[in-house]
Amino acid sequence: MAVMTLLYADPEVAAALDAATTVDAMRAALLAAYEGRLVAPPRAAAPLGGGRMVLTAGHLVDEWYGFRSYDTFGHPQGEQLVVLHDARTGAIRAVAVGEELGSRRTGGLGGVAVDALARPDAATLGVIGSGRQAWTQVWAAAAVRPLREVVVHSRSAARRDAFAARVRAELGVPARAVAEPSAAVTARDMVVLATTSPTPVLRAADLSPGTHVNAVGFKQRDRSEFGADLLDAADLLVTDSPAQAADYRPPMLAATPPYAGRLRDLGGILAGAVPGRTTADQVSVFCSTGLAGTEVFLLDRLTRVGAATR
Amino acid sequence: MAVMTLLYADPEVAAALDAATTVDAMRAALLAAYEGRLVAPPRAAAPLGGGRMVLTAGHLVDEWYGFRSYDTFGHPQGEQLVVLHDARTGAIRAVAVGEELGSRRTGGLGGVAVDALARPDAATLGVIGSGRQAWTQVWAAAAVRPLREVVVHSRSAARRDAFAARVRAELGVPARAVAEPSAAVTARDMVVLATTSPTPVLRAADLSPGTHVNAVGFKQRDRSEFGADLLDAADLLVTDSPAQAADYRPPMLAATPPYAGRLRDLGGILAGAVPGRTTADQVSVFCSTGLAGTEVFLLDRLTRVGAATR
Repeated sequence: MAVMTLLYADPEVAAALDAATTVDAMRAALLAAYEGRLVAPPRAAAPLGGGRMVLTAGHLVDEWYGFRSYDTFGHPQGEQLVVLHDARTGAIRAVAVGEELGSRRTGGLGGVAVDALARPDAATLGVIGSGRQAWTQVWAAAAVRPLREVVVHSRSAARRDAFAARVRAELGVPARAVAEPSAAVTARDMVVLATTSPTPVLRAADLSPGTHVNAVGFKQRDRSEFGADLLDAADLLVTDSPAQAADYRPPMLAATPPYAGRLRDLGGILAGAVPGRTTADQVSVFCSTGLAGTEVFLLDRLTRVGAATR
Repeated sequence: MAVMTLLYADPEVAAALDAATTVDAMRAALLAAYEGRLVAPPRAAAPLGGGRMVLTAGHLVDEWYGFRSYDTFGHPQGEQLVVLHDARTGAIRAVAVGEELGSRRTGGLGGVAVDALARPDAATLGVIGSGRQAWTQVWAAAAVRPLREVVVHSRSAARRDAFAARVRAELGVPARAVAEPSAAVTARDMVVLATTSPTPVLRAADLSPGTHVNAVGFKQRDRSEFGADLLDAADLLVTDSPAQAADYRPPMLAATPPYAGRLRDLGGILAGAVPGRTTADQVSVFCSTGLAGTEVFLLDRLTRVGAATR
């Protein structure tokens, strides 16, 4: 074989994919999906006794096809895999193992949402959650808005302090941790919800007019990190995949009446086909689903970045 | 991460997996499946427009889980992927890319069938087909029976000559190519069918009593490299996965009446729970389906062999 498969583990992914590159790739992926060039079918799964092996596939016509796999065994070190085939030859160009590509992907989608939906002058960011997903949301937001301050809450004082320290150290943005969720989100221009909570962690009444919210955690009926009050307060409800949003079981809150009819496609907003924010006082909420095929899209981008820097 | 994922391409697989190791691993896999320790659900697939991404998964309880992926785009360089997760931690221990692991797997299953079903004194082997699958069948058979001669037919004179030369060079077994299929199979102790032919390439009347046949290519109704005459001539009909045999669409010939009731499980024969060959003049036919999960089983074995030789 003339073609050699590239293997990326988390350190290589972290070194090669900066936030600007990632957000740019996810913007291109959302547009490709909106235009029908990115084929992303429903996930496929194989039951294995105690867990399932799940595959989300994608195909960028004439360019590549591939998939992400993950499992539902719930192991502490459970790793994801992303595979990139060349669409002309079928050869496997690259494989990524670990968590970085997937969480940067989700962060990048959140960065596109912030760029498209937050006010142009948005500069303060409140965060609830201090895990990997919370981090990549802030990392990507900092690439599309010059952040003046990040305020973070999570249940663990040690973890929220460490998160604030990481924001200061890695992003060079003033950051502090607070003991109450309301103190994190009150009077912020932007809010990130990225918890594992099945019950609301936010009161919509705490938000200022004009706030943009990225919701990354649970968002289903009877299992959601926010309540109907947030959807009622929202002037704009947006998702990265209306098809996947409609497919959640139990249903995604924003995809049920009376909200479903108002749920807009982020790709359509990027394409100029669907209106986005029109006034500075609108509250916008991005319900992140993780558009299928975007991990492969990002791996393709990674192989090109890697080639360019070697 | 303390664990590093190992990546194997075809040359590493070829260097590390000899025929005896492979046949031994496949024997263990067939027994594990028969005893219910190897969970191997039906394949899962995602449609991608022009082709499908397909996943066959497996789980050896308390040891590992994983899958093989392949696609149906039909690209000339289309590659398969095999992934091995540690069942205790979820970490991805190894990834194999290419064709070697899959074809050695199928060869190994054929070797187990020969070992279990051919006469103990079987020494001559006729082959129809000269591709990768034909090769690994002969490679594995040579590990379980001391071969006295291999006689090969395929449609291309150049390819069958090269195949015979490879048998002499790599296996040290006398081998010759013949221009007619009947000349390859007449008066042989063992026969391998490994073609891409959708129509019969063999007349059962050419076989001697006591012959064992491994059938690796198409074996479905209206698309089969052998006809009902072979099944009628067979005293023993055996497969590596009765569940997968029953699942073929269109149906596998040997899984339809009047043959279905006679189709035996190779794992059951290995376990001593189902009778195998009982007399020297019986004709036995192994209908290879490629038991799911066996690629991951073999990758697990490969990682252990690799560790032992470094």
